[in-house]
Amino acid sequence: MIKTPYLLFLGNAPDQLAAKVAIGIKDWRPENAVAQFRMAGCGADLGIQDMTLAEAKAVGAKTLVIGVANRGGIISDAWKVVLKEALAMGYDLASGLHNLLRDEADLVETAAAHGCRLHDVRVPSVQYPIANGKKRSGKRCLTVGTDCSVGKMYTAMAMDAEMRKRGLKSTFRATGQTGILITGGGVPLDAVIADFMAGSVEYLTPDNDSDHWDHIEGQGSLFHVSYSGVTMALVHGGQPDALILGHEPTRTHMRGLPEYQQPSLEELRDVALTLARVGNPACEVVGISVNTQHMSDTEAIAYLAQVEARMSLPTVDPIRIGAGPLVDALAAL
Amino acid sequence: MIKTPYLLFLGNAPDQLAAKVAIGIKDWRPENAVAQFRMAGCGADLGIQDMTLAEAKAVGAKTLVIGVANRGGIISDAWKVVLKEALAMGYDLASGLHNLLRDEADLVETAAAHGCRLHDVRVPSVQYPIANGKKRSGKRCLTVGTDCSVGKMYTAMAMDAEMRKRGLKSTFRATGQTGILITGGGVPLDAVIADFMAGSVEYLTPDNDSDHWDHIEGQGSLFHVSYSGVTMALVHGGQPDALILGHEPTRTHMRGLPEYQQPSLEELRDVALTLARVGNPACEVVGISVNTQHMSDTEAIAYLAQVEARMSLPTVDPIRIGAGPLVDALAAL
Repeated sequence: MIKTPYLLFLGNAPDQLAAKVAIGIKDWRPENAVAQFRMAGCGADLGIQDMTLAEAKAVGAKTLVIGVANRGGIISDAWKVVLKEALAMGYDLASGLHNLLRDEADLVETAAAHGCRLHDVRVPSVQYPIANGKKRSGKRCLTVGTDCSVGKMYTAMAMDAEMRKRGLKSTFRATGQTGILITGGGVPLDAVIADFMAGSVEYLTPDNDSDHWDHIEGQGSLFHVSYSGVTMALVHGGQPDALILGHEPTRTHMRGLPEYQQPSLEELRDVALTLARVGNPACEVVGISVNTQHMSDTEAIAYLAQVEARMSLPTVDPIRIGAGPLVDALAAL
Repeated sequence: MIKTPYLLFLGNAPDQLAAKVAIGIKDWRPENAVAQFRMAGCGADLGIQDMTLAEAKAVGAKTLVIGVANRGGIISDAWKVVLKEALAMGYDLASGLHNLLRDEADLVETAAAHGCRLHDVRVPSVQYPIANGKKRSGKRCLTVGTDCSVGKMYTAMAMDAEMRKRGLKSTFRATGQTGILITGGGVPLDAVIADFMAGSVEYLTPDNDSDHWDHIEGQGSLFHVSYSGVTMALVHGGQPDALILGHEPTRTHMRGLPEYQQPSLEELRDVALTLARVGNPACEVVGISVNTQHMSDTEAIAYLAQVEARMSLPTVDPIRIGAGPLVDALAAL
C-alpha cells in the first residue's frame, strides 16, 4: 500500500488532460490530496491549494504522487530535482509512468539514503498465486464493457462512493495504474504474467463480510481482441455476484481497432453472463452504465430511457445521473 | 529458434514419465532426435541410440535438450558436469525447467566462453506487440478444450503431421514448453505479460499462403477459471478459421478444481464459436478430438460414434484412430 495522504505533483503538465491521474485522485479521494505541487509553466490546476514540499510535509503529506502523464512517460531532469528533494525530506514517491522510478539510479540511491520507498504502480510487486477458484465469502460486482475505456473504473468508483455514503460495506478494488494511485493499492492487471492473472484477481478480492461488496475495476472487453484475455481473468478470478454492462454509444468502432464493431448490449450480456456463471452460478446482470459524455442532456436522457426499456435493467450514466439505481439493484439481489 | 537436430538429455530420470518432453520430441520430430544421453541410474529409455556428447556431435547434433522433468525442476550438480562439457564442445543448451539455465552463473560463463546459446523455453525471449486484430492471410486451426490437458497439443501435432503426409501446407505453432522444444520455436504463452498475450499469438501465426494451415497449440480452457484468460487470447489472437473441440470423457471434475464440473461439448461449442467469431466471423467448429486413453477399444469406439451422431461433427481420438477425418473437415471448409 502507498502511504496517504499525498502531495500531487503536476510538474510542468501542458494542460488539464495531462493531469488525469491527479484529477482522479482529487475527485475520488479528496481526503488523500493535501495539495498540488506545480512547476513553472504548468498548465494544469486541480483547484486545490498549492504547497511547497515543506508546507505539505508539515500538514502530513506522506507520498509525492506523480499525477501527470507526459509525452513518452519520461522522468525529466527538471522533475528529478524536485523528486530528489522530496526523498531527502522523507517523502515516498509513487508513479504510474512507463519510465520506472526504480530504473533511475539517482532516485534509487537517494531513496535508499533516506529510507524512502519508490512505488511503480505499473508493475506488480507481488508474486501472485495461480487461481484456485474456491468460493469466497462476501459479494463482488464487476463492470464489463462493450469496449475498452467506456467508463468501467468510474462506474465502480461511483458505486463504491454511493454505498459508503449510504453506510454500506464497500471497497473499490483497483486493477489499473490510475485506480491504484487513487486508492493507494491494487493489482496492475495488464502487467501480470498470463498464468497468474486470475490468481491476482482472487488475491485482490479476498474473503469478506457476507454483506460487503467489492467493486472490481474492469479492464478491456470480452469483445476487444487485444485485451479480452485480461477481461476473462477478471470475470473468472473475480467470481462476480453482479455484473454491470458498460457502454459508450457514440463510438463508431472498437477502440484502436477500426475494423471491429462494438457488440450490442444483448450480445455482451449473454456472453459475459455465460462465462461469469462458470465461476459463480448465481451471478446476475443487474444494471447498465452508459458513458454519455459526448451526448447532450436531452440525447443522454432519451438514450438511457430507451436502453432501460429495451434491456429491462436500470440504466444510468453514473457521472451525469449518479450510481444510485445501480446500488439499489445490488441491494435487491 | 533452437538449432536442430538434438541430443536428448535424460539425465537420471527415475522413470519413463519423467522423460515426457524427450518422448514428445522422439514421437513427433524423430528427425530432430539424433540420440539419447543417459546417466547412471536413468530409468527412462526412448528406444533410440545412446551416444556420448562426442559421438552425437560427430553426427551433427547441435543442441543438448534437457528432455526430462525432475522433481522441483532443479538443475543438479551431477547434470552440470555434463552440461558444461557439452557447452565446451560447442553445443547449445535448451530447457523448459523452472530452474532457468540463465540463472546458473557457471553455465552462463561457460556458454559465453564458447559462444553457445542457452534457451530457456519457459520464458519469453521476444518483446511481443499488442494485438492489432488485422486480418491475416492463410488459415488457422485451434483446439479448444472442455478442460486443461485433454490432448490439445497432440491433436494439433497429429493434424499437422497428417496434412504434411498428404503434401499439404501446414505448420504446428507451439504455445507451451514441450511444443517449443519439440519443434524448436514458439511462444511460451503462459509466461507472457497479460497485455501482450493476444499480440504474441498474432506474432506466432503471421500472414501465410492462402492454402497454408497453422495448427495452433491450445492452452487451458474457456471454462477453467485459473487459465481461461490465456485461452481467450488464443481465440482472439489466433483468428482461427476452424475450431476443434477437445474432450476427455472420464474426468470427474475440472483439472485441479474439485468443485468445478466440465462443460458439455455443446456449451463449449456455443461459447467458443461466439467468441471466435469476434475475431473471425467466418470461423466454424469442424470436428471433435476425444482423448480416450482411459477407455477400452470398445468403449472408445462406442463413445466416439455416440458423440459424432449427437454433435453432427467428425469425432476421433487422433492418437487411437488418427487425425484423418479432422483434416478432411478442414479441407471441406
